[in-house]
Amino acid sequence: MPVSEEILAKKTTAVMPENPRQTDFQLVRVKSTWCRIKKGEAICNSEDKITTSQAKIGKSVSDIGISWTIEAPISFCYKVVETCSLLDPANSTLLFGHIIDPQQLEMAINSEREQRRFIVMDQIVDEYYGSKVRKYFEANNVHYKILSLPTTEETKSMDLVLSILQEVHNFGIDRRKEPIIAIGGGVCLDIVGLAASLYRRRTPYIRVPTTLLAYVDASVGAKNGVNFLQCKNKLGGYTPPVATFLDRSFIQTIPRRHISNGLGEILKMALMKHKGLFDLLKSRGKYMLDTKFQSHNGLVNRGDAALKTTRLAIETMLEELAPNLWEDDLDRLVDFGHLISPELEMKVLPSLMHGEAVNIDMAFMTYVAYERGLLTTEEKADIIQCMKGLELPVWHDDCNVHLIKRALVERLKHCGGQMRMPLPTGLGTAEIFNDISEDTLERAYKLWASECKAAMEEDFLIH
Amino acid sequence: MPVSEEILAKKTTAVMPENPRQTDFQLVRVKSTWCRIKKGEAICNSEDKITTSQAKIGKSVSDIGISWTIEAPISFCYKVVETCSLLDPANSTLLFGHIIDPQQLEMAINSEREQRRFIVMDQIVDEYYGSKVRKYFEANNVHYKILSLPTTEETKSMDLVLSILQEVHNFGIDRRKEPIIAIGGGVCLDIVGLAASLYRRRTPYIRVPTTLLAYVDASVGAKNGVNFLQCKNKLGGYTPPVATFLDRSFIQTIPRRHISNGLGEILKMALMKHKGLFDLLKSRGKYMLDTKFQSHNGLVNRGDAALKTTRLAIETMLEELAPNLWEDDLDRLVDFGHLISPELEMKVLPSLMHGEAVNIDMAFMTYVAYERGLLTTEEKADIIQCMKGLELPVWHDDCNVHLIKRALVERLKHCGGQMRMPLPTGLGTAEIFNDISEDTLERAYKLWASECKAAMEEDFLIH
Ligand SMILES: NC(=O)c1ccc[n+]([C@@H]2O[C@H](COP(=O)([O-])OP(=O)(O)OC[C@H]3O[C@@H](n4cnc5c(N)ncnc54)[C@H](O)[C@@H]3O)[C@@H](O)[C@H]2O)c1
Ligand SMILES: NC(=O)c1ccc[n+]([C@@H]2O[C@H](COP(=O)([O-])OP(=O)(O)OC[C@H]3O[C@@H](n4cnc5c(N)ncnc54)[C@H](O)[C@@H]3O)[C@@H](O)[C@H]2O)c1
Ligand SMILES: [Zn+2]
Ligand SMILES: [Zn+2]
Repeated sequence: MPVSEEILAKKTTAVMPENPRQTDFQLVRVKSTWCRIKKGEAICNSEDKITTSQAKIGKSVSDIGISWTIEAPISFCYKVVETCSLLDPANSTLLFGHIIDPQQLEMAINSEREQRRFIVMDQIVDEYYGSKVRKYFEANNVHYKILSLPTTEETKSMDLVLSILQEVHNFGIDRRKEPIIAIGGGVCLDIVGLAASLYRRRTPYIRVPTTLLAYVDASVGAKNGVNFLQCKNKLGGYTPPVATFLDRSFIQTIPRRHISNGLGEILKMALMKHKGLFDLLKSRGKYMLDTKFQSHNGLVNRGDAALKTTRLAIETMLEELAPNLWEDDLDRLVDFGHLISPELEMKVLPSLMHGEAVNIDMAFMTYVAYERGLLTTEEKADIIQCMKGLELPVWHDDCNVHLIKRALVERLKHCGGQMRMPLPTGLGTAEIFNDISEDTLERAYKLWASECKAAMEEDFLIH
Repeated sequence: MPVSEEILAKKTTAVMPENPRQTDFQLVRVKSTWCRIKKGEAICNSEDKITTSQAKIGKSVSDIGISWTIEAPISFCYKVVETCSLLDPANSTLLFGHIIDPQQLEMAINSEREQRRFIVMDQIVDEYYGSKVRKYFEANNVHYKILSLPTTEETKSMDLVLSILQEVHNFGIDRRKEPIIAIGGGVCLDIVGLAASLYRRRTPYIRVPTTLLAYVDASVGAKNGVNFLQCKNKLGGYTPPVATFLDRSFIQTIPRRHISNGLGEILKMALMKHKGLFDLLKSRGKYMLDTKFQSHNGLVNRGDAALKTTRLAIETMLEELAPNLWEDDLDRLVDFGHLISPELEMKVLPSLMHGEAVNIDMAFMTYVAYERGLLTTEEKADIIQCMKGLELPVWHDDCNVHLIKRALVERLKHCGGQMRMPLPTGLGTAEIFNDISEDTLERAYKLWASECKAAMEEDFLIH
């Protein structure tokens, strides 16, 4: 049944009343009270201290009623701190490094009150580092409770969030002064981040990443989440931690394949915005894989490839995330490698790790950029070569034209009808495109298959 | 074991490295890429369109490592729309009233695509208004699904959130265009708000309040939540709806006591910041109770007390909430009546409704303000008289000195060691105090008991 013209006409009237009187107000605080003032209006009571808010209230009055439009800005502030020997009892970063205000920091350090901390740790991390963590808190006279949990994609659920919160509640924390601490890979940090952000509408938490992926990716932004109904990260939010504490020494115990996994996300940032980072990955990638991102002889120096690489990865990521913390802007360079990979990862579950699926996506996109005339033959070859050096897959049989098209249709749906495809326009520069034709995609696919499928098979034969 | 001086000294060094080099960066977007620039630095590439973000990155380099401080602002925008005949099929507010951009609004109205909506409705509301709601969506050719649920304090849990999301997931919605709609009292709106804000890290939702309390309070701000481990609203967040649609006609079916309940929160705003609103409550309170906030003969006119009252309640509330959406500022006038009432409500559960407990708290605080010399005898009498006229309790035997002190100790803990006690400084003006002495509290309690306890007992005898 088609909607009648009359109803349509009425509809429009009801939502857009004719000649509404619209007034915009700013908000100013006089003593304890927030007041509306019209834009440009002066405040008479000039003796009092006056604070102006960025918040705005628009008011539109019509015959039907009033419509208020509220613009309410809030600001998140958090720290990302790179340190060494995080678990050395003499290093107080883990206890107090989240405090930004110097005065509060001094008060906290000199406080007579017993410190209390609730810590959630991945079970495998506990096996390697648990005793050091316990010693740390004991040496600092902290009343602590460690919850050691198997944090995996299978247990990454709201159930686990609630059982963590049950324990937090039993332990009891001062939610202004005793942040919850998460120590583990991305799964652990995501679960605890969601738990903390739900508890009392927001309880501060701290992230200590122990995998390379978590170090350069999950740690830097605001996202958290759990899986729901077989879907990855279907439930979650965007509340950043008060602080992330980075210590590369955790990475020495993760398997080589997991290092490559993390390198996939680092390469993403390199290709999108940093030639220097790309060069580091190209020249020092194998070395960093072999040494698991540890510094030579444990001594950090400025020439240190692993140090430079992680710093650049984090800084480039921070640049892209900070202006778009809640992902309101859909034009995002950090989406590179994430247009087709979700579909692929899902399909071949659990054979590909996230960074591997991302890399296969990026390899294909490199061919798209080439076919679109954004990359030279040499640049394309350079990129693929670098990927191989990082021991990342550059091809997957299941990533066929069908899957690619299906994934891009999904992308269109979630991105307000536009493709918003980030593509490299050289080594370390990129732009976002909305006009990549089917033809370009198909030609890219063919060339990709002819160059990378064969190469993968050769690799198989050699190994 | 006391921490040694040496460790303390080391601690301070580790967190506050000596002579760190601190640089502050702004973020600007050139083409698709966000770049850091030092404050005051010029951007060379002047041909490109440049966007500047409010986000900032501070970088502090020391021997120990780098510390980045991220300041990331985000802005919420939402509408609060007062309308009549929300369920009239010709009124398109419920379908499209959340769309702010006029071009998008026109596109949505003229779209050929079938509209889909997922609605969660309180079961009792469904009994009264369900058939009208169904007719509304049918007449507008909307593919809809109504989930009718008993939303009560007992069911207000994460379990219910998850079962709602299971249904949302089965139904399938376009999360950019098809907001979830909640129709009910504060419980329903709080549960659905939390569900929507968790789903895919944020799915838009719409609030349609059907009780007076929800109309003037739960609808205006950003808060949502569920109960957890016997604690009220222990889990939740601050994600505002895209829109709230207000239609007073729902209120006609709620019990008289629930009207008084909502009036408690309205009186709070009146006492804190609006003499005109207080006068309306004083002179027209009984009339509004009798007529359940409906307009005379269903005709709205400017003199309409219920219309004026709700508008003022909403505007004063918006003024206080918009600059402090995430409650980061602890100095809040809206906390008036909420310092002692949580403890009281809990203790006598379920005998007092929220607005009633709030009113008992406000009655006591009126005496505190009087003893502190902020109110005259007449003003104090005026306030208590007005409360009685609204059929709100002004005394409760369980609200004794012990409970009051315990509640205020809790308050201190949650408010960073300061009392932050909002008190009226006249009729419709207020300030926040941190220096109310025990003595003042005790004198206030005595006078309150002598004047209000007796009065309550008299009331009992009369009825
Ligand atoms: N929030 C974000 O912005 C964000 C970004 C990227 C990824 N993620 C999430 O992170 C998850 C992937 O993270 P991940 O790769 O760290 O996986 P993970 O957390 O599952 O860790 C991988 C494995 O390594 C083990 N492990 C962790 N640290 C170790 C150590 N130091 N030594 C030895 N073993 C160790 C873990 O027990 C686990 O078995 C995904 O769920 C993804 O959704 C989130
Ligand atoms: N998010 C916020 O900012 C905020 C503010 C205030 C209160 N709240 C929350 O709101 C809840 C209280 O809200 P409430 O007082 O609306 O309670 P409620 O939602 O429980 O509704 C009260 C009762 O009225 C019934 N009802 C609802 N609409 C009706 C109608 N039109 N006609 C007849 N019956 C109707 C309901 O079925 C219920 O039995 C609390 O859980 C509180 O935490 C939230
Ligand atoms: Zn990723
Ligand atoms: Zn309240």
